[in-house]
Amino acid sequence: MRILAEDIQKVLHELFVKYNFTPEKAQLLANVFTESTLDGVSSHGINRVPLFIEYIENGVINIKAEAEKIESFGSIERWDGHFGPGIINATKCTNRTIELAKQHGMGMVALRNTNHWMRGGTYGKQAADANCISIMFTNTKPNMPPWGGKESRIGNNPFVISVPRKKGHVVLDMAISQFAFGKINDYKLRGEKLPYPGGWDDNDKLSNDPDKILSKERGLPIGYWKGSALSIVLDMLATVMAAGNSTYRISSKEIETAISQIYICIYPGVFNDEELQQKLIEEIIDFTHNVEPISPEDKIYYPGERSSLTKSNNLEAGIVVDKSIWQKIMILAEK
Amino acid sequence: MRILAEDIQKVLHELFVKYNFTPEKAQLLANVFTESTLDGVSSHGINRVPLFIEYIENGVINIKAEAEKIESFGSIERWDGHFGPGIINATKCTNRTIELAKQHGMGMVALRNTNHWMRGGTYGKQAADANCISIMFTNTKPNMPPWGGKESRIGNNPFVISVPRKKGHVVLDMAISQFAFGKINDYKLRGEKLPYPGGWDDNDKLSNDPDKILSKERGLPIGYWKGSALSIVLDMLATVMAAGNSTYRISSKEIETAISQIYICIYPGVFNDEELQQKLIEEIIDFTHNVEPISPEDKIYYPGERSSLTKSNNLEAGIVVDKSIWQKIMILAEK
Repeated sequence: MRILAEDIQKVLHELFVKYNFTPEKAQLLANVFTESTLDGVSSHGINRVPLFIEYIENGVINIKAEAEKIESFGSIERWDGHFGPGIINATKCTNRTIELAKQHGMGMVALRNTNHWMRGGTYGKQAADANCISIMFTNTKPNMPPWGGKESRIGNNPFVISVPRKKGHVVLDMAISQFAFGKINDYKLRGEKLPYPGGWDDNDKLSNDPDKILSKERGLPIGYWKGSALSIVLDMLATVMAAGNSTYRISSKEIETAISQIYICIYPGVFNDEELQQKLIEEIIDFTHNVEPISPEDKIYYPGERSSLTKSNNLEAGIVVDKSIWQKIMILAEK
Repeated sequence: MRILAEDIQKVLHELFVKYNFTPEKAQLLANVFTESTLDGVSSHGINRVPLFIEYIENGVINIKAEAEKIESFGSIERWDGHFGPGIINATKCTNRTIELAKQHGMGMVALRNTNHWMRGGTYGKQAADANCISIMFTNTKPNMPPWGGKESRIGNNPFVISVPRKKGHVVLDMAISQFAFGKINDYKLRGEKLPYPGGWDDNDKLSNDPDKILSKERGLPIGYWKGSALSIVLDMLATVMAAGNSTYRISSKEIETAISQIYICIYPGVFNDEELQQKLIEEIIDFTHNVEPISPEDKIYYPGERSSLTKSNNLEAGIVVDKSIWQKIMILAEK
């Protein structure tokens, strides 16, 4: 079924108000969930709403919590999310990091005790809208073995870099895993194999068979040993700066919560040469766009380009929404 | 042949003095080249010295250049390397970034017009020795196709993250390519295939055959489309902040020079809880170390651990040096 973005937003807003969020917070949540869905990331948009509500009901997410500054020095700050909704904490910390960047050239907020921020690219875009470059990442529960190991002990730690651009921001938003388990499940439902290995089978061999990977959920890091190492250092950086939970500590809980995140913003506007900067960005995009594709029908995209194309389409035609998800949300909104 | 580190250092120092470096700069260069060789990274240590001398002789590297601050605002600065030796510029900019971090909590230097920094981990270690976390990267000439494209138009943009640690720093130092061409050549010389695909063959298929990959030097990014996107945003960030050359602009020159780099340091010492921080790091290392290995004889390493083990061995037994490289260096030192 196809639903217009404004209808999704309206229903979600009512749902969140019903669950006792203030109108402002309900609006923010509805906007972010709708925007991610519009951009084609339903997995961290509308499809995630029922679980979000479940976490509110079982107390994992505290809807009254306000993220709070704990310590600061110059351009860096440590915040505590007090188990509030990840989207609300992330939006607040991004705004604060933008302020720090505009004051000091660059700034950082390290946030502990927060919940899943849903789609990391949301905050990369938010920073880019404020003319800031951003580098952001979060740790997660363990979902990949460290390279050479059998058991999942490192997180897929989604990692965001955004660059403000007049003709559409450049936003990299990637987990350190080669494929998300949700994506692997999509292949399973379609009865297809993954195009590349995505995890380990029961015999500890790399596999591109969704069934075999999903039986133990041991994902493969991008670049094998390289992504494994990258996941570990991102976890260390977030944990140390936030004095928060590492993937190790998160693993002791049944549900992923009280995670640690890093928000870095850089304000290139201080150098007063925006025109040159935009020109340099366009050159890079042109150079990579204009490469001859391997398959003649292919097009090469810059990071974030595809989701902005998806958004344009979805704004016109409405968004394809899973019927059972929509029904769940309608029931939650009415009960 | 095996040579003691102190002998390598002595010969290199004499060589660089002969090539008209000041004694201090000759010492710094000799130290860095020797240290990388000690750590097992000869490819960016002693093996690279003849090319470094060649670049001095043909004027690509200006030995008299001093990196210079061009603009600054708060905790961020733009520097121009004036085509000086990459090692000298990188060491200076790392020192400056450490100062900025200690003053502001974090700091950044964006450097343009510099040359190859050799081994990125050198500067990650330098930051960690000063108790700073670092995030650093450099752009390069194009050596990988953007995902879906035929021709190499993105760089392998080496990327460093370091975390200071009492029991041995954690240093991630990785190019965005799955395998360096030098490494692929090592496989070729041994008559072996790569363990995983590492580039494209003449038919635009992914290959693990060194001969087929080396014929066109089209490398594979880590994580396929993910590393491709990461390479592009790192290039944008370095280019915009430094107002320097992008991989596109570097591609117009025959020799890779006048590249752009980012140095970010964060000083976690401002939060006065070093003991807790070190404990959190040890927990992460223990958790990942103690995982059961897939192959019983395997051990899981943290980023940087293997090179510090190599160093210990090399300090005792001397360093295995390629005979023809050593002869070249001896001839250069004497001529």
